[in-house]
Amino acid sequence: MYLTQGLHRAVQQFPDRIATVQDDRRTSYRELADLCARLAGGLQRVGIAAGERVGILALNSDFHSGYFLGCWWAGAVCVPVNTRWSLAEIVYALDESDTTLLFIDDEFSSMATWLLRESTSLNTVVHVGQGATPSGAVSLAQWLDGAMPVDDCRRGGDALACILYTGGTTGFPKGVMLSHRNLWSSAIARMAEGMPLPHHVSLYVAPLFHTASLGKLITQVIVAGTSVAVPAFRVEEVMALISRERINDIVLVPSMIQMMLDHPQFPDYDLSCLARITYGASPISLALLERAMQAFPEAQFSHAYGMTETAPVISINPWFNHLPEAWDSGIVRSAGRAGLCVEVRIVDENGHEVPRGVSGEVTVRGPNVMLGYWNNPQATADALRDGWMHTGDGGYMDEQGYLYIVDRIKDMIISGGENVYSAEVENVLARHDAVASCAVIGIPSERWGEAVHAVVVLRPGAAVTEQALCDFCRAALAGYKVPKSVAFVSELPLSGPGKVLKHVLREPYWSDRTRQVS
Amino acid sequence: MYLTQGLHRAVQQFPDRIATVQDDRRTSYRELADLCARLAGGLQRVGIAAGERVGILALNSDFHSGYFLGCWWAGAVCVPVNTRWSLAEIVYALDESDTTLLFIDDEFSSMATWLLRESTSLNTVVHVGQGATPSGAVSLAQWLDGAMPVDDCRRGGDALACILYTGGTTGFPKGVMLSHRNLWSSAIARMAEGMPLPHHVSLYVAPLFHTASLGKLITQVIVAGTSVAVPAFRVEEVMALISRERINDIVLVPSMIQMMLDHPQFPDYDLSCLARITYGASPISLALLERAMQAFPEAQFSHAYGMTETAPVISINPWFNHLPEAWDSGIVRSAGRAGLCVEVRIVDENGHEVPRGVSGEVTVRGPNVMLGYWNNPQATADALRDGWMHTGDGGYMDEQGYLYIVDRIKDMIISGGENVYSAEVENVLARHDAVASCAVIGIPSERWGEAVHAVVVLRPGAAVTEQALCDFCRAALAGYKVPKSVAFVSELPLSGPGKVLKHVLREPYWSDRTRQVS
Repeated sequence: MYLTQGLHRAVQQFPDRIATVQDDRRTSYRELADLCARLAGGLQRVGIAAGERVGILALNSDFHSGYFLGCWWAGAVCVPVNTRWSLAEIVYALDESDTTLLFIDDEFSSMATWLLRESTSLNTVVHVGQGATPSGAVSLAQWLDGAMPVDDCRRGGDALACILYTGGTTGFPKGVMLSHRNLWSSAIARMAEGMPLPHHVSLYVAPLFHTASLGKLITQVIVAGTSVAVPAFRVEEVMALISRERINDIVLVPSMIQMMLDHPQFPDYDLSCLARITYGASPISLALLERAMQAFPEAQFSHAYGMTETAPVISINPWFNHLPEAWDSGIVRSAGRAGLCVEVRIVDENGHEVPRGVSGEVTVRGPNVMLGYWNNPQATADALRDGWMHTGDGGYMDEQGYLYIVDRIKDMIISGGENVYSAEVENVLARHDAVASCAVIGIPSERWGEAVHAVVVLRPGAAVTEQALCDFCRAALAGYKVPKSVAFVSELPLSGPGKVLKHVLREPYWSDRTRQVS
Repeated sequence: MYLTQGLHRAVQQFPDRIATVQDDRRTSYRELADLCARLAGGLQRVGIAAGERVGILALNSDFHSGYFLGCWWAGAVCVPVNTRWSLAEIVYALDESDTTLLFIDDEFSSMATWLLRESTSLNTVVHVGQGATPSGAVSLAQWLDGAMPVDDCRRGGDALACILYTGGTTGFPKGVMLSHRNLWSSAIARMAEGMPLPHHVSLYVAPLFHTASLGKLITQVIVAGTSVAVPAFRVEEVMALISRERINDIVLVPSMIQMMLDHPQFPDYDLSCLARITYGASPISLALLERAMQAFPEAQFSHAYGMTETAPVISINPWFNHLPEAWDSGIVRSAGRAGLCVEVRIVDENGHEVPRGVSGEVTVRGPNVMLGYWNNPQATADALRDGWMHTGDGGYMDEQGYLYIVDRIKDMIISGGENVYSAEVENVLARHDAVASCAVIGIPSERWGEAVHAVVVLRPGAAVTEQALCDFCRAALAGYKVPKSVAFVSELPLSGPGKVLKHVLREPYWSDRTRQVS
């Protein structure tokens, strides 16, 4: 199987159906396939062979469908770069994955010259946008000019489809290698758990460099659905688009739900078209969920728990576990049961399955589990053992196989749906002259699920403000990794061997609630 | 992925749910998994390694689930033998696949000694049944005694899961090699096209050596459904079981639907539990379909078109194409559109895609397409070209991608859902002393879809009855391959190069209808 298969089927069955919408631009499946054939021709013309990496640095747009499917049509590997990253992080990802060609939009066009100079791998930047083509780059129209459409190479199966970078525990991002099979298996198994809609119309509000959105795009192609793109989550624009395009199927992070419900114009929009709302990526409070279910009485809510490494779904808590009985039984708080292509086991430190009700590490096996981390056999071996992905999430399972996530074993924070590794932030803070030692934890945030919080011990005689430390971090890290708050303390609680006892630091913030990550 | 994955998930989520039912025996998923672990232990004890073949010769029973899943648990390859075959055909399949161990039931226990003597590969026959264990065989209980449960080897992906023998054009059956991935992809993609039921309860009326039934068994394991077994299609027993077990999901061959509707006791049974009826494997007349839809007003009807080589589904005509509009437009007669894991192309003799509306050969590509024919690289190369399975079915596609099957390019008859290759029957007939030349064709049959019909030219001076020729065939061929009628003629219509013009022979029978095979 190959991820372009659905595109061919769509052209055969619904050639004039709208594949993508952005603003007033509507692209049919036939037009999308034509773009892909030409884009693949363009890639071949510049010598990009099967398996080679092609990047994109752009806000969500209708071009993303052409980018992903066109690269796969040519047999290439997609490297969608996290748009929230700092320049240093972006160059790291491009170079580490040996990406030679990068699509860039208006938002990032000012970086083109700099990226071409700083990156050792990049040799071509193709500008996709309405603005002026930056120096050193070529416009998409010019780059495609004369490119001959080519046949789909139909490369797929275990072949690499994309590399998605996530934060790394060592301070360097890790490239998650997902194959065509990984992404397809997750998508089709997810689809088998829900009723097919006559015509799926989805809005991508989360960025498409994340598997949650990318996975949705793949299901849309399989069912010849319509994908509506919005460059960023601007709450009123999103509500207007949902209403105008009659969006019926959407994936939302809890903070987005909250922002919509809190918006004064929320009652002004007819959002009754939303037949399905899937939430995930960070904890949702039951109060918010209840409010959302009341605000969208026509929608079926379901919860998806997963991660980039599992392409992405591990478990689903379906709509019927959001009915009143499920609130009474508490099942509504569960991350659901293993998805239809997934095996889940809770194991102890020695890899042995623990009894039901006992917490351990969540491990996952199935065709959705990543090939490994790019150029990182050690991290791969740590994560994948006998075919089981060790998620780093702590959880337990009840007698009916319902999974409850209770903590993260890896020292990671999920803020607004983005993974932040504490070590990465601590490494930067520790480089500041005034900092003697520090620890970074996640604390509850109504808006972000968790907020990055730094606890700092200053060097004797040093003085620094919270603002100065945050600015220092911002120069090296993506904005969402920068601490939202800093506490100055005289010493950190340490274990016997000198390890920071983070649970002691977290305790005052979390004592009245479960730190749920799903 | 591996086909036992669903079993593990079922044990985790629904350990006490009933996995199989036969008569008054109900087996939970936990019990089924225990049987599989022990059966796999038994296979390992007798030295059956991963990839080795294990056969079954038995009418449908609850043991089939344990057989398939237990063999896969051990990494073995299943060879479910066609129970309708002659002894010669059975021995051929066992020896050709090098099957060393065979499970056999009461119905076939009298053959055990003979099979052990005649087969060069077979060395163990395990008897599964209530009757006396035949000489040379060992009972299942005795064989399992002391077998230690073993861990699931979780062998899957492209590994061979089963070999299913189908009739061959040369007179010898061909072994279709299906991998775990083939069967899983077809099952999960099919599931994604229909609404999941809260609890799937299915009755296997077609034999489990066919992919239609085997594929249903696989979907049942994925969703932890309940499988009800019935040894043969005895119409009143089937109606009683549907009613008693509240069967909600069933696959039927048109002749079975006809027999149910024609049965005088049909109105006595409450069959309103049937939420879904999938029909296929042979043509259905619109008159019968209309009658069935009136008789089962609560059921959603859908049509599946496929073949063993595609594990099995190629296209689906879903329930909404059985609504009144679809009758008016004629779409109800279609074989549907390419399934969610399938690409379909209609090609000419040179392999080029033909325009819509023009007939050609149906070709298929996708993760469901077989690995090839066992030990038959030539037949594999003929069937699989550039990854495209050449089905031998002739058809055309309309502008919306709907497939209409119009003829079979391969000289094959489908009678009561079974494939009959004309050449196989002709080879036998031609060996009869009285026969100078012959041709075998399919003619319309209300009951079987098509009936095998022989056209015979006698040797000068020879005399033989229709009955005598049929008896002669029965000694060498499965009953369903034996001609249902024989016409004696003075000469066969021949082409210039001396090839029998079968379309001339078929013409008087088919002139008033489309020879639809789907």
